[in-house]
Amino acid sequence: MIRYPKPLATLIRELAKLPGIGEKSGQRLAFHILSLPEGDTEALSKAIREAKKSMHQCSVCGNWTDTDPCSICRDKRRRRDIICVVEMPQDVVALEKMKEFDGLYHVLHGHISAIEGIGPEDINIKNLIIRLRENPVEEVILATNPTIDGETTAMYIAGLLKPTQIKVSRLANGIPIGGGLEFTDKTTLYKAMEGRREL
Amino acid sequence: MIRYPKPLATLIRELAKLPGIGEKSGQRLAFHILSLPEGDTEALSKAIREAKKSMHQCSVCGNWTDTDPCSICRDKRRRRDIICVVEMPQDVVALEKMKEFDGLYHVLHGHISAIEGIGPEDINIKNLIIRLRENPVEEVILATNPTIDGETTAMYIAGLLKPTQIKVSRLANGIPIGGGLEFTDKTTLYKAMEGRREL
Repeated sequence: MIRYPKPLATLIRELAKLPGIGEKSGQRLAFHILSLPEGDTEALSKAIREAKKSMHQCSVCGNWTDTDPCSICRDKRRRRDIICVVEMPQDVVALEKMKEFDGLYHVLHGHISAIEGIGPEDINIKNLIIRLRENPVEEVILATNPTIDGETTAMYIAGLLKPTQIKVSRLANGIPIGGGLEFTDKTTLYKAMEGRREL
Repeated sequence: MIRYPKPLATLIRELAKLPGIGEKSGQRLAFHILSLPEGDTEALSKAIREAKKSMHQCSVCGNWTDTDPCSICRDKRRRRDIICVVEMPQDVVALEKMKEFDGLYHVLHGHISAIEGIGPEDINIKNLIIRLRENPVEEVILATNPTIDGETTAMYIAGLLKPTQIKVSRLANGIPIGGGLEFTDKTTLYKAMEGRREL
């Protein structure tokens, strides 16, 4: 390995820790950062510090916010009788882009995973139960991912909600729009077949 | 577009300015950064600031360094009679990994480009000429990229060195090791044919 000057080596190492950025991309980004005017590097450095300092999890739904409750939880125009439970804050972004759901969210910040050693108490489930006890809703949509861990998490929460009167639902699985049968894996095809609708 | 809280929007915007990171990756990285312990985000923020503050261009060769002259220019074990001229600091890294070149470098920080409006005075050529006048060498290897701009830059510098006794060379072009003729573009094939060696 080539020995970089220490400040550069440190920068590459810190950048390489980010997801999807390895040694090679970290090096490329570090050299780019060195070539930027100091105003730009200062803006980037400050943005990281400020975002971490001023953003926190909403005490109601767990989503990232700089206010409390977050803007979605405070929004008077949204329905309060339906909660969509997702694994990550990014999932809220994806659903909000859809512009069709006007209920509230609950962000788990993860999923139950036997392999990763993540139990129900490690993610934001307890707050969901307290929230539903204090403010009962009509329906909870368990929008965790259609993966083993996502399914496990959904099943676990569904079990907890069983004694309540709350309707519990799960997003449909099937062939993505624009996708072709040829390129769809067999499990998805099975789910699509199973969930077929009469015309 | 979904409206992010301001500190998060700022972070995404600053990250998205980096090369190879667009809106989508910027969002992904920003959410990851929010989920990190504050010690980690602080380390990243500080690494950016510190690298920019303490790294500068070597007054001799132009490469990034935290000392002056840089460690390569100061290295007594390296030959001082041969200089390899490259476009970017990253090119020095690539050549040092080869572990076969033990001369010195000169980093141009760019190339001459008519389209981008970059002239000879915009890159580190003047210092190269001064350097060669003060410390004449045997050979200058023009290792700029085999692109239109890289060739233009090499030809320009070769022209400047014409009146001197310095030998000027250029890296060979040809089929990359491990590559196949089938996947080699015709210009490279032509160069490989032209530069063929008798066995």
